[in-house]
Amino acid sequence: MRVKTGIKGLDEMLNGGLLPGRVVLISGPTGSGKTILGVQFIYNGIKYFDEPGIFITLEQSKKKIKEDMRALGMDLDELGDKFRLIGGPIAKIKYNKEKTKAKLEDFIKEVEEVVKEVGAKRVVIDSINLFLLLFKTDEEKRRALLELTETLSRLNCTALLTCEVRENTFDISWWGFEQFVVDGVITLYNVKQGSIFQQGIAIRKMRGTKHVKDIVPYRITDKGIVVYPEEPWLAIEKKK
Amino acid sequence: MRVKTGIKGLDEMLNGGLLPGRVVLISGPTGSGKTILGVQFIYNGIKYFDEPGIFITLEQSKKKIKEDMRALGMDLDELGDKFRLIGGPIAKIKYNKEKTKAKLEDFIKEVEEVVKEVGAKRVVIDSINLFLLLFKTDEEKRRALLELTETLSRLNCTALLTCEVRENTFDISWWGFEQFVVDGVITLYNVKQGSIFQQGIAIRKMRGTKHVKDIVPYRITDKGIVVYPEEPWLAIEKKK
Amino acid sequence: MRVKTGIKGLDEMLNGGLLPGRVVLISGPTGSGKTILGVQFIYNGIKYFDEPGIFITLEQSKKKIKEDMRALGMDLDELGDKFRLIGGPIAKIKYNKEKTKAKLEDFIKEVEEVVKEVGAKRVVIDSINLFLLLFKTDEEKRRALLELTETLSRLNCTALLTCEVRENTFDISWWGFEQFVVDGVITLYNVKQGSIFQQGIAIRKMRGTKHVKDIVPYRITDKGIVVYPEEPWLAIEKKK
Amino acid sequence: MRVKTGIKGLDEMLNGGLLPGRVVLISGPTGSGKTILGVQFIYNGIKYFDEPGIFITLEQSKKKIKEDMRALGMDLDELGDKFRLIGGPIAKIKYNKEKTKAKLEDFIKEVEEVVKEVGAKRVVIDSINLFLLLFKTDEEKRRALLELTETLSRLNCTALLTCEVRENTFDISWWGFEQFVVDGVITLYNVKQGSIFQQGIAIRKMRGTKHVKDIVPYRITDKGIVVYPEEPWLAIEKKK
Amino acid sequence: MRVKTGIKGLDEMLNGGLLPGRVVLISGPTGSGKTILGVQFIYNGIKYFDEPGIFITLEQSKKKIKEDMRALGMDLDELGDKFRLIGGPIAKIKYNKEKTKAKLEDFIKEVEEVVKEVGAKRVVIDSINLFLLLFKTDEEKRRALLELTETLSRLNCTALLTCEVRENTFDISWWGFEQFVVDGVITLYNVKQGSIFQQGIAIRKMRGTKHVKDIVPYRITDKGIVVYPEEPWLAIEKKK
Amino acid sequence: MRVKTGIKGLDEMLNGGLLPGRVVLISGPTGSGKTILGVQFIYNGIKYFDEPGIFITLEQSKKKIKEDMRALGMDLDELGDKFRLIGGPIAKIKYNKEKTKAKLEDFIKEVEEVVKEVGAKRVVIDSINLFLLLFKTDEEKRRALLELTETLSRLNCTALLTCEVRENTFDISWWGFEQFVVDGVITLYNVKQGSIFQQGIAIRKMRGTKHVKDIVPYRITDKGIVVYPEEPWLAIEKKK
Repeated sequence: MRVKTGIKGLDEMLNGGLLPGRVVLISGPTGSGKTILGVQFIYNGIKYFDEPGIFITLEQSKKKIKEDMRALGMDLDELGDKFRLIGGPIAKIKYNKEKTKAKLEDFIKEVEEVVKEVGAKRVVIDSINLFLLLFKTDEEKRRALLELTETLSRLNCTALLTCEVRENTFDISWWGFEQFVVDGVITLYNVKQGSIFQQGIAIRKMRGTKHVKDIVPYRITDKGIVVYPEEPWLAIEKKK
Repeated sequence: MRVKTGIKGLDEMLNGGLLPGRVVLISGPTGSGKTILGVQFIYNGIKYFDEPGIFITLEQSKKKIKEDMRALGMDLDELGDKFRLIGGPIAKIKYNKEKTKAKLEDFIKEVEEVVKEVGAKRVVIDSINLFLLLFKTDEEKRRALLELTETLSRLNCTALLTCEVRENTFDISWWGFEQFVVDGVITLYNVKQGSIFQQGIAIRKMRGTKHVKDIVPYRITDKGIVVYPEEPWLAIEKKK
Repeated sequence: MRVKTGIKGLDEMLNGGLLPGRVVLISGPTGSGKTILGVQFIYNGIKYFDEPGIFITLEQSKKKIKEDMRALGMDLDELGDKFRLIGGPIAKIKYNKEKTKAKLEDFIKEVEEVVKEVGAKRVVIDSINLFLLLFKTDEEKRRALLELTETLSRLNCTALLTCEVRENTFDISWWGFEQFVVDGVITLYNVKQGSIFQQGIAIRKMRGTKHVKDIVPYRITDKGIVVYPEEPWLAIEKKK
Repeated sequence: MRVKTGIKGLDEMLNGGLLPGRVVLISGPTGSGKTILGVQFIYNGIKYFDEPGIFITLEQSKKKIKEDMRALGMDLDELGDKFRLIGGPIAKIKYNKEKTKAKLEDFIKEVEEVVKEVGAKRVVIDSINLFLLLFKTDEEKRRALLELTETLSRLNCTALLTCEVRENTFDISWWGFEQFVVDGVITLYNVKQGSIFQQGIAIRKMRGTKHVKDIVPYRITDKGIVVYPEEPWLAIEKKK
Repeated sequence: MRVKTGIKGLDEMLNGGLLPGRVVLISGPTGSGKTILGVQFIYNGIKYFDEPGIFITLEQSKKKIKEDMRALGMDLDELGDKFRLIGGPIAKIKYNKEKTKAKLEDFIKEVEEVVKEVGAKRVVIDSINLFLLLFKTDEEKRRALLELTETLSRLNCTALLTCEVRENTFDISWWGFEQFVVDGVITLYNVKQGSIFQQGIAIRKMRGTKHVKDIVPYRITDKGIVVYPEEPWLAIEKKK
Repeated sequence: MRVKTGIKGLDEMLNGGLLPGRVVLISGPTGSGKTILGVQFIYNGIKYFDEPGIFITLEQSKKKIKEDMRALGMDLDELGDKFRLIGGPIAKIKYNKEKTKAKLEDFIKEVEEVVKEVGAKRVVIDSINLFLLLFKTDEEKRRALLELTETLSRLNCTALLTCEVRENTFDISWWGFEQFVVDGVITLYNVKQGSIFQQGIAIRKMRGTKHVKDIVPYRITDKGIVVYPEEPWLAIEKKK
């Protein structure tokens, strides 16, 4: 039983889809379409696979998310009770700044409640960078991510955590350890070749399943992200 | 409904202009013309699109800004009541050094008041680097930028935040996280090829709209910045 | 007397297998198959060489480990009393955060008890990164690793410690000193060539035995990791 | 009305000279001739344009400066009342180490007094690195530079601030923010090509005026710095 | 009078051997054979040159050292009274953690006593990295190394200090200052060329004697390290 | 009036020699011969130019310095009253660790006394790295170097300060600011080309005099350092 993203090329690369109950990092630089991919995962889940889902935005207002997705042909308002868009938990958390433990528990509790209310099978957190900025030390960050990951798995949710990475690198996470504690990593690349940026997607890690290992091209189209697993990524090999 | 910058080539690249109420980072190295681009945005808004605007300068004196823009054919004094040039909030803020919270609130309050007075639809802050230097930790900086961004959106202003980046890099921000919380990023490049510097502009991220993804050339002319979306950026591909 | 990994090509490279009672680092980036290699070492030990073994997972739940390994043809539940899968000591340790010394002693004591119960000859700790994150300073980390290593040797266990390394580097450990105190280092490489990732394995250090020094290819197949010592690693030499 | 440096090629590049009342950074690595350029600016100002000037040396003794400049054909002692060479304010400041605010105010006050005494139109501070080392945090440094810059502009002085940069980089300042708060940046390059160092000068930023953007060659001759705007910088393009 | 290492090619490179009473750093990455070279120096000293020696191991147990060296044809047990293998001073030192001064004095005293007991002319400390980890600041580390070096010289011992360096660099020490205070530096290189690692040795500094300056190949054979000063190091020049 | 180093090729490059009373940095990596060059400067001064000199060694014992120099044909003991070799001030200073100010004053006072006793015209401090390690912050280090430099100039001594730099870089100092406060910088290069190290010398800065700017080859011969200003440095241009 696979959890299909509904993005055809990507499901092919994943040998049918994601494994249920797993947590996957979606990493990529600014403007690579991580938010769009996350919304497609939730939207397609509800529309085509009857799986309720929640989208947690820590970066943008709910209003802007809706506007932007409408421009891509996804009307989030028509999803009804099977969808929940949560905006701004980052704001609520900020008032008890010192109490790291409290922050984490509040956040996890809120996620847990909404998952149960909606009966969500899919969860997206956009982005994990802002979530992790709430914690000071590397150990606290790692522990927070571990607890979040375990909670999502325990709730039987298949989850995507978007993760912004530095420009012009082949990094797969921001802090350097996010990839340790998740079950999979999908990376979006945006490589400058002369005056052009080439976009490619790769599955860097996916526990428990076979998958395509190469980088393949994708494009952000009028209907969201489309992946082309049959095409070569860089027509002209990058000279560096 | 698009918010036109009035810089023809740039509006083309943006598929007509910016989305209203969005906040966009203008990043680039020293001498790339960020201030000029910001003033053009405000000046053109008032002159050609009847949208009042304010320009907040944290780096230069108002006197110098006016002199420099006059040399580019933009007489800021003729804009009248629809324009406000605010100089030196950074200076005012400095006396209550320890009170980070107070600093932020004062600044945001001042911006809010002036926006309302003028009925501003456009705001430029030049530069966000100096604004963020007021805050100590990365978390404080990020939070300050988030609140500023949300305030500007709430006021229905389309805003440009200029952002100085390090020389000789393809970085898109100074602190590395500014791009997370804004709606778009336009980057100015200044690439040394032998003894010549080549200037190029790219839209690295622009939520909610299609846009050109390539780097295209621009020049700082007698009339300000001109963008050439039809020309190739680097005639001779950079060897590195 | 050699301790065979049961991975044919790897045992060949090792001149017959590992030396008994030695501790070996298995380092590699995300998605390189370190966990799989570790499970194979334990599974093959019990199935083919009658050596009981324990697998200590600090990253994943026991449930997921079992699922993933079943997909690779290894049913961990059929191993019976000769096997022990320990999950989550990292969670138990977390409540006495400040007492570094206590943490280390508790962990080592737990390992020691289980080794004796099972009569284990083989031990895998997956991963050493998370174990070392429990200790603050470099000196504490090094000391903890030294004591762990000495305990495992004293118990006559041949042990593998998996170690995640940064992407796109030829690093052989995360903190930079793990390799000092172990008896051997086997490194998994995952090198991007254009749009393809090439996987290779090398024995970077192995005290007390001759071994192959070159990087040779390996693949993650339906039956786990397979090493090809006769094949060249990179058909096309990497241009960088 | 332009403020001529009296260095012919440089004035050409600047479209006639500097703008009055502006502060310009002269950055370059060790041995690139920043001090010489600074003295030429002051010396030529007095000799050929009747503009009094002061040279503030924080690095060298006044005696050495005079000796070195005499070797380049500039006798500073013949300049009379229109010139003032201030040596060693850095030494005076050191006794009230903790009082950052006091240090800054004392320094600025001293500069202000001497400027008024001499009726100086030109000021050189050599170097800004040592000045900024007096302040601890980046915020203090930036603020100090901002106040210094504003003072010099308020006094209607055209000022050059020399700024040492790291070897073998294309950096344009030491701390990375000096260029934010000045009106212009002129950079001296010293690029190793095999066993030869090639010297080049570029105007990286100059608010309010058109200017040449390319790097052009210069040489340190018996009469100080000479700039060759018509010659190509690197006969043989640097391979890197 | 030279102190021969007994490694023929190396003694040739050293113009006959080491100078008596000097302290030499043996630096190299993991798996380059530093421990083997150190043991050969002591073993050959006793067997062929009648010079007693002590080997201080801070990384490995004495048992493992003996096993590993036996596999290379060196039976340390047959060396009798002229040899002393000291294992684990690092362990003893750990109980008085805070007393840096005490730690150093205890260690030096222990070394001094054993040197006198055995009448040692040769000393190896394997590795200096672990020794230096006992000290917190760079100044303390440097001072500790300086006192150790002076003690060894005062005792008329010729000493080798092994020093692990980072992978894939041409570094010659770990902390960056070890080379300042020793009399010589011999570096082992392990350079990846495609899928092969090439091993080379070079004398980077050797006060008071002529020596070969080039990198020459060496191999770890059944009898320990063999150096080939007549062969070229890299058949195919490394492309980088 | 020039202060000749007595190293023929170097004096040529310097247009006759150093300027009297100036302080010059001699920087270079481990094994590049900085100590030898320093001793030659003092030795030649006394033997051929009748200028008394002192050599301050902070790294090595006096005994070793003498042995090493004798091997290069320089018998320091025959120099008599015109020479003073000071060893180990670093050791004396260590007992009043906290009193940075005292340390500096003691050191400078000692230098001053010996200079007067001997009537020294030349001083070498080998190395400035160890001297600067006595001071904690960058500001303290810079100030200490500034006071040392001023003292040496005040005493009319021409001084060389040796400065170890990192391997495999083109750095010209260790801390990055030493070059600011001295009057000249001479750098020794040691560049790896395949398996060979090529040694070259360059005058990177020399206030008050014309000088050769290129890198020229030098060798450490039986008689010390010899510079070849007529030969090309790298026969085969370094490919990087």
